[in-house]
Amino acid sequence: MNMDAFFKAASIAVIGASRDSTKVGNVILRNLIDGKFKGKIYPVNPNAEEIQGLKCYPSADAIKERVELAVIAVPTPFVIPVLGQCAKKGIKHAVIISAGFRETGNAKGEEELKTVLNKYGIRAIGPNCLGTFNSRSEMDTLFLPRYRLKRPETGNISFICQSGAVGAAILDMATAQGYGFAKFASYGNAVDVDESDLLEYFGNDEETKVICMYVEGIRDGRKFLEVAKRVTKKKPVIILKGGVTEQGSHAIVSHTGSLAGAAEVYFGAFKQAGVVRADSLYDMFNYARILEASVPACGGRVQIITNGGGYGVLASDSIAKFGLEMAEMTSGTVKALKVKFPPAMNVGNPLDLLGDATTERYKAALEAAMNDNNVDAIVLVVLYQTPRITTDVIDVITEMNARKKKPMVVVSTGGEFTELLRRNLEMAGIATFEYPEEAVKAMSALVGYYGSK
Amino acid sequence: MNMDAFFKAASIAVIGASRDSTKVGNVILRNLIDGKFKGKIYPVNPNAEEIQGLKCYPSADAIKERVELAVIAVPTPFVIPVLGQCAKKGIKHAVIISAGFRETGNAKGEEELKTVLNKYGIRAIGPNCLGTFNSRSEMDTLFLPRYRLKRPETGNISFICQSGAVGAAILDMATAQGYGFAKFASYGNAVDVDESDLLEYFGNDEETKVICMYVEGIRDGRKFLEVAKRVTKKKPVIILKGGVTEQGSHAIVSHTGSLAGAAEVYFGAFKQAGVVRADSLYDMFNYARILEASVPACGGRVQIITNGGGYGVLASDSIAKFGLEMAEMTSGTVKALKVKFPPAMNVGNPLDLLGDATTERYKAALEAAMNDNNVDAIVLVVLYQTPRITTDVIDVITEMNARKKKPMVVVSTGGEFTELLRRNLEMAGIATFEYPEEAVKAMSALVGYYGSK
Repeated sequence: MNMDAFFKAASIAVIGASRDSTKVGNVILRNLIDGKFKGKIYPVNPNAEEIQGLKCYPSADAIKERVELAVIAVPTPFVIPVLGQCAKKGIKHAVIISAGFRETGNAKGEEELKTVLNKYGIRAIGPNCLGTFNSRSEMDTLFLPRYRLKRPETGNISFICQSGAVGAAILDMATAQGYGFAKFASYGNAVDVDESDLLEYFGNDEETKVICMYVEGIRDGRKFLEVAKRVTKKKPVIILKGGVTEQGSHAIVSHTGSLAGAAEVYFGAFKQAGVVRADSLYDMFNYARILEASVPACGGRVQIITNGGGYGVLASDSIAKFGLEMAEMTSGTVKALKVKFPPAMNVGNPLDLLGDATTERYKAALEAAMNDNNVDAIVLVVLYQTPRITTDVIDVITEMNARKKKPMVVVSTGGEFTELLRRNLEMAGIATFEYPEEAVKAMSALVGYYGSK
Repeated sequence: MNMDAFFKAASIAVIGASRDSTKVGNVILRNLIDGKFKGKIYPVNPNAEEIQGLKCYPSADAIKERVELAVIAVPTPFVIPVLGQCAKKGIKHAVIISAGFRETGNAKGEEELKTVLNKYGIRAIGPNCLGTFNSRSEMDTLFLPRYRLKRPETGNISFICQSGAVGAAILDMATAQGYGFAKFASYGNAVDVDESDLLEYFGNDEETKVICMYVEGIRDGRKFLEVAKRVTKKKPVIILKGGVTEQGSHAIVSHTGSLAGAAEVYFGAFKQAGVVRADSLYDMFNYARILEASVPACGGRVQIITNGGGYGVLASDSIAKFGLEMAEMTSGTVKALKVKFPPAMNVGNPLDLLGDATTERYKAALEAAMNDNNVDAIVLVVLYQTPRITTDVIDVITEMNARKKKPMVVVSTGGEFTELLRRNLEMAGIATFEYPEEAVKAMSALVGYYGSK
């Protein structure tokens, strides 16, 4: 199925466009006009001649020019009639924002909607969805105004989200924190296009390097498994499943009306398909960052380098908790480092560069770990509060990472000074974390993904 | 033992004070002079007559005035002779910053130090420690400059940290995020004053409402258990134990030289003593925030109120994962709410106020949950991206929380707008969280603490 129109349409009819700024149809139109979207926009509303400076059409089939996508934001009873007009016009793709179907108990309405879409041969996302967004073209069907939901910068993560509110909140936060996205889709009730279709589409999308999903239920397990197996061979897929407990599944019924199913069945399927499973939004985000930034992992033997002994201890605990191994550098490497470092320093794992660590010590340690065959990946702790560390450590880390030899994450906790360090490293494509535990957990997700391929 | 001098000394001798700004003794002196500290400061250095505008003394016993605390930052071999001069002067308390003892294999040196301290009757924190800090008086013996480690605002959390680097990084970050601290102590090798002594002291300290600890080893288990049992009856104690795995304990040996001991033994003791156990720095921080902010919990039946269905699902999952219960509001409350809310809305738990939730809906829902006898605590999700929510929801939440009836946490994810909400609520003494999972986990720590009392 060709789904390009949902993300790359060059001409869009906004059905239910409105002059009233509190109406969803007004917001969607404004978002398209105000953004960088370069395509044609056709407002449709039988009671207006012009909206926001654009000529308004009484119905979709009154538009003369070609229309690739309809965004439908009309009251529930009008959705089906409006689709009839779209069919007449020859529109083959629709994003149905309108709600009031299965999620409110109107299962009959949703069945009718499905029949009508089939009859007309229209592919649809929704109903009851937040919409779609493409950061490159700013093709934007999200019904939230930009002052409430900032649109993200261009990036490599695409996000498929069953829940509109989860999607909006995450996009907004990620944008504030400077992360980029490629594409976003909130698919709501999935009367037609479902999570597997979107997964397949993003799997083939060259602008997408990592796919994140929040799902409450999966409509067709066999289809999902088959698609996911294929996609995870090409790029990482991280899934957070809502409703993994009895309490959570119960909550789902009144939310998206999905059947949650037994968590174990889902987890088994994820594992079989090579999916990276996240247990929380926090984890999903952390995993996406490392999987986007890092070179592939060849194994799970991790060298910890630190200037804070306690962080070395906590990172070591996490290595064990999250199923990784402590690397043991070769005796040649250890010998060479002992010559370079003060005699009191213990060259092991964690490699504690001590509280008076300098950029030179970091350089020697990093170089050694990068070149040692017993080390698969590096967790680098840089605490900026210690007296002798200077900002040029950023250059050393960046340069070492640019060699693209081994996965590396940087842990750094603190205030302004630390933020400077982290922003610079993130800009250079290095995943950074505030705490050792989360850095190691993210590393474990990276190792797990490449180990399952 | 009276330990006031470590945090409230009115006169301090800085032994090893230096003109060289790269030296620790210089930094400590500068921190005392530059801060709000109102007490007397006496630099001690046999090779200078004046340092930073203050008269310098050749040795501690050359000072005429009363001295309550010595901060010792001299090379290892001079620590013991310098303590002799302190004894002559009648100084009874010392913070020993100097390193080079057990942590570098110099166990003999540490034994001697212990003997000397006993002989002179001097109580000491350290050696190999970061120092102490009191946010109210800015009595500050930390050896890191303020531009690297910002000092926190006045608050209610006191932090005991075996590792200096962990302590410094956490203080710095917390300060940047606007959290306040009462007192801080990094006790290093604990040759004399140990974690239990500090715990007891902070337990009796009226400015301390919540105690956080990072420990790698506990010196005297029986003493700790006895002290902790007493303190946790008065205020919450949250402990993160480093070295709970074989890998972590191994890392400890070269860090603080403590014996890590079996994790199970520690965890059992923590439980017995009513200690709140944190499994990561992230958790420790989250727990401290809720325990500082919240009224006591009377039970674990939680009502979730949300305007994002997906967040309701994730919060419900977490309720089950972290051992809490879903509250069931009485039929009277449910009936009353049904009248107020749109007919399509399902009044249950989670209580989903839907994507078009207004401040009025939040008010009705919060009031109902606060007054319902089947509800012990509230997890309130406010997603600011939805179209009809307005900033006056802050007033409603603040007012409701000010009644001090039940514990409440607020979950809010997003960008600038959300930050505004969260900062306002935090200022009003409400713990806020970015993700539903961490909010529920923190609530579970709160319920656990009050349940164990």
